[in-house]
Amino acid sequence: MLQLYYAPDTVSLASHVALEEAKAEYAARLVNFKINEQRSPEFLKINAKGRVPVLITEDGVLTETLPILYYICRMFPNAGLLGDNERSSFALAEMQSFHSFLATSVHVAFAHIFRPERYGEGEATAAAMREKSGLSIYTFFDMIESKLSDGRPFVHGDRFTITDPYLLVFSRWIDRAKLGPIDKFPSIAAHRRRIEERPSTQKVLALG
Amino acid sequence: MLQLYYAPDTVSLASHVALEEAKAEYAARLVNFKINEQRSPEFLKINAKGRVPVLITEDGVLTETLPILYYICRMFPNAGLLGDNERSSFALAEMQSFHSFLATSVHVAFAHIFRPERYGEGEATAAAMREKSGLSIYTFFDMIESKLSDGRPFVHGDRFTITDPYLLVFSRWIDRAKLGPIDKFPSIAAHRRRIEERPSTQKVLALG
Repeated sequence: MLQLYYAPDTVSLASHVALEEAKAEYAARLVNFKINEQRSPEFLKINAKGRVPVLITEDGVLTETLPILYYICRMFPNAGLLGDNERSSFALAEMQSFHSFLATSVHVAFAHIFRPERYGEGEATAAAMREKSGLSIYTFFDMIESKLSDGRPFVHGDRFTITDPYLLVFSRWIDRAKLGPIDKFPSIAAHRRRIEERPSTQKVLALG
Repeated sequence: MLQLYYAPDTVSLASHVALEEAKAEYAARLVNFKINEQRSPEFLKINAKGRVPVLITEDGVLTETLPILYYICRMFPNAGLLGDNERSSFALAEMQSFHSFLATSVHVAFAHIFRPERYGEGEATAAAMREKSGLSIYTFFDMIESKLSDGRPFVHGDRFTITDPYLLVFSRWIDRAKLGPIDKFPSIAAHRRRIEERPSTQKVLALG
């Protein structure tokens, strides 16, 4: 059976919701960040990078959000988690381009606020990174707001895809980074409420 | 016909070599970073993010390295640029996991050295980021060295894949970041020479 190592308020939310939406059989394993369990010798044996999500499959261990999301799509094709994007190579590439933007620009900007020591030592450095990252996040959210402003319910249109819980991670982090309220970005705020209300997300968030 | 917007010494090298390996018909369009052409109104109309690579297809514009590499694999299946990894969902996911690591950890660490202003203002901030990023890059290269140390010629074994020119970007950047020489990492150094010697890479590098 699949096992997902997760932690509340982290990017593992996206993989976790995707597994629920796929109606996958899996065991959820909490990694307690409050006691720094992600740096424990036991967990580092599972993922030397000390991060979640980790998905244990019958073939081995997978790390990093995007490969895990794409793996879930391939293993549970009936769940249709790529939406209409799998109909063409170009549509799939456009979807993946948005994922790369979230991973390499948006996620990285938040990481400078949550984990400044990963990028440079000292309080002055952390403050400088926090200031710049806040501005970058607003710029990125303006771009996302513009993408969502056509009024369709999901990131890629009328069908739910893996992109929706992935974006949810970052629209929730606006609060965690104290850059809110999210209502500055009305289409993103509406999207966030819509995805939070899904039974899959409710179940995952209830785990705390 | 496909058009690739590229610039020397940037991550566009990976997509450029992949197009050559696929024997794709494409036009290469130089974006002159020395005169900041990537921030020109003309180029920002093509990619609002002001970055390369950009691939113009008959269906529209693609940005971000990984989606472009995956698109090239799908459009030119006979080139076999996924190697043996396409034989199983797990092997494909493991490959993508390594790509995500390069994109979100390795590339991001180099970006702190080349473009510190992207992450924080001021010379002290840039110096702190440079120091930390240098250490991170050595840690990441130790992990990659260990992966390559089984003596097989390519990242994923005996067959060339898109991962090889993608890794080449960063093994060359060791020089650009003045963190070399690359010979500190003998397996990575041997891989770099092997990929640099391929006719595809030679052709791209000769464009300067």
